[in-house]
Parts: sequence; C-alpha cells; structure tokens
Amino acid sequence: MSGQDAGFRATVLTLYPEMFPGPLGVSLAGKALADKAWSLETVQIRDFATDKHHMVDDTPAGGGAGMVMKADVLARAVDAVADERPRLFMSPRGKPLSQERVRELAAGPGAIILCGRFEGVDERLIEARGFEEVSIGDYILSGGETAAIVVLDAIVRLLPGVMGNAQSGETESFETGLLEHPQYTKPQEWEGRRIPDVLLSGNHGAIEKWRKAEAEKLTRERRPDLWDLYPQMKKPHK
Amino acid sequence: MSGQDAGFRATVLTLYPEMFPGPLGVSLAGKALADKAWSLETVQIRDFATDKHHMVDDTPAGGGAGMVMKADVLARAVDAVADERPRLFMSPRGKPLSQERVRELAAGPGAIILCGRFEGVDERLIEARGFEEVSIGDYILSGGETAAIVVLDAIVRLLPGVMGNAQSGETESFETGLLEHPQYTKPQEWEGRRIPDVLLSGNHGAIEKWRKAEAEKLTRERRPDLWDLYPQMKKPHK
Repeated sequence: MSGQDAGFRATVLTLYPEMFPGPLGVSLAGKALADKAWSLETVQIRDFATDKHHMVDDTPAGGGAGMVMKADVLARAVDAVADERPRLFMSPRGKPLSQERVRELAAGPGAIILCGRFEGVDERLIEARGFEEVSIGDYILSGGETAAIVVLDAIVRLLPGVMGNAQSGETESFETGLLEHPQYTKPQEWEGRRIPDVLLSGNHGAIEKWRKAEAEKLTRERRPDLWDLYPQMKKPHK
Repeated sequence: MSGQDAGFRATVLTLYPEMFPGPLGVSLAGKALADKAWSLETVQIRDFATDKHHMVDDTPAGGGAGMVMKADVLARAVDAVADERPRLFMSPRGKPLSQERVRELAAGPGAIILCGRFEGVDERLIEARGFEEVSIGDYILSGGETAAIVVLDAIVRLLPGVMGNAQSGETESFETGLLEHPQYTKPQEWEGRRIPDVLLSGNHGAIEKWRKAEAEKLTRERRPDLWDLYPQMKKPHK
C-alpha cells in the first residue's frame, strides 16, 4: 500500500488516547498500521471542554449515581473530525456487533468511534450527531476504549492485503452460520489422545462431511440461538 | 490493599505478551493494578516450544487453511502456571460471556487465560487441560488477546475497592435484566433539545417510573432476546 493514502481511517474520541494503539500496534493490526492499510487518530475529548476546569461530565438530570458526559463538549469534539464516515458509540445498550456489520464497516471509508466513560453520555448528543450505538457483548466495561479496540481488531483483519490467507476469513465461525469444527495438528497421538481417524484418511469428502457434522453438533449444543437461524441461512430467498 | 497479596491474579498465555497490560495499564484498571487490587502476568507460549525452530503451530489435520496451535507446546505452558484458578480459552466457539459470569470470575482467585491465534488450538489441549471456552461476541478477532483484555476490563472494575461508587455497578445495563435508560446532564436546553421535564421535576417517584418505562421500551425495541427473558427475572421462583 506504499505511496497510497491509508485505506480505512479510524478516529477514536476518548478521554484516554494513551490506550491507543495499544494491542492494535502489535502483530497483524500493527503491521497493517505500519503498512498504511489503515490509519488511527485519537481525539482527546477534554480538549473540547471550554470551562476553566475542563469539565467533560456533570451529574445526571433527575439524580442517581455517577456522571454523564456533556453533549456540548462531545459535539465539539465530533464536529472537529466529522465527515461521511459511520459514527459508532460503544455502549452496552447498542445493537450487538455481528460479523456481518464488521464486514460492512471494513468495506467502508473508516469509522468515528466515541468511547463513553462514567454512566454514559447525554442522549441528545447521540440523537443530534447520528451515532449508531454498538455493543460488543452483554457485559459492562470500564469504558468504551477496550470495546473500540475489539471493533477495530475485527475490522482491520478483513482489510485488503492484511490477512495472508484469504480463505481463512471465509471458513471461520459465523461466516457459515455455524461455530467452527474442532481442529487438530501433529502429533497424531498426544497424552493417549488420538486425532480422529477420518482426518488422517486422506478422503476429502469424508473429512468435509465430518467437519460439517461436528460444526452442526457444536452449534446445536452450545448456541441454540444460532442453530435456530441456521436452516434459514441455508434456504434460498423465496 | 497495600501490604496484602494481590487479590485477583490474571495469567495470560499468549504469543504477544507485549500487548499487555496495554489499555489495562491506564485509568481504572491501571490504577487498580498499581494498587495491587489485581495482578497481571504474561507467559510467552513460544518459550515452551522445544524444537530448534520454536514452532508453536502446525498444519491442520485433514487439510485446510491456516495453522493450528500445538497441544504439546500449549500444555507445557499451561502446566507451568496451573493452579486452582479457572482456565479460560478465548474463542468465538465459546459460551457467550455474560455479566453474571464476569461477577463469578471477579469473586474468584483469578484466571488463566489462553489466547489463540491462527485457526485455533488443538482440540485435545482444551479437553485435556479443562479449558472453558469463552466468547466475547459473534465476530472474529485477529487473536484472543483483545478478547482477554475485554474480559479482564469487565472483571477488574468489579473487584473490591476499584469502583468509586458501588451503586454504579448495580443500576447498569444487564444487572436489572434491562438496557439502561437514557441519561442527560446540563445544560437544560442544548441545540433546541430539552432534557425531559420529568427529570427536572424533583418528583423522585415519577423519575423512577419514567426511567423504568424508558428502559423497558429500549430493551423491547433493541433487544427482543433480553426482553423475552425479563418477565422471568421479575417473577419469584415457583
């Protein structure tokens, strides 16, 4: 990608810019960053506080624990970087992130990602600036930063030229609607446990059949929610 | 916690120890780390490869793309640190992480967390060493490291003394079975958008009622899956 502008452009709005790139500066994502397959910019939200104490939050209207990030300060931070890119607000109230959404984002120009802290952000900011609320899972983090790192990790590996083996991206969990089948590698026997015979048979048809059956069994047992959706995925649209 | 042994002990098995503590060294988790409310140790898996090329992976039995991490190398790494702590393997095939599981882990002695790379790890290692497969969501990451950071972020904020305001932990999304109601803070009017009147009324009963109704509405609209479980949570066990 040398000589070209970076492909996917990520801008992260945060009170902790020192958390970035963090793990995204290492390994696959780090190499892709160095190769300019993507770019990462952080914006310190506090720089957009205009009062003398650089206040970014205030008490919740109606009372209650914690603090709420102020709409006016956040709006100034967003407006300083806003362009046509999707705007994501990392939040446990958001729509659960899916591999499908990750693919869409990876095919786009980039993302502006807002990381909340404390009890959340003023709802009016989310509405007025058109943020998409995205949840990475049903648990609570100390802030949106580690969630932003996860979203970017998922996106970056799908960018053109980043993964060595393109096929790898297509046979994994979720891409087929099933969890992935078990994997084995040498040695053939380890601590008395053998690799299933079929995998050593050289019979590619039998291997594919076994892997599909294992993937279906695993999905049925562990993720009845995915299993319920699976027959629909296999059927052509009417 | 000074003078005491660290409470929650995390050991992360990884090919990229330089990704840690990363964002966990900053802010809430970083302060808790410095205060010895938890400890973080990384183990370089490659140090347990015994061949001259320090090989940690090999081709999948039965063929296919990518590489699979070797059971023998991983077992030596695990055995070097193993004790009574739960063993988590970060994997999209795992059971989805829940706030309930986070609470359980936070109440325990710590965790040994195995971060996979490539196409995964030899299934025999998972079975033989009793790993619990944990998924942070239905998307694919470049490896288990960013998932491990998320799990630890979720756990650490619940450790004794880490969160300033204990009440904060109890009224958030998932703890009540509902997504959290919208939040607002000053100014009362911003860009023509006003804070809902009820929140400025000083009528605490009306405020609680409004918040609960908003939380229920949001959950019904955005997360029918959680909404379906909600009436069960409210009912006493028969």
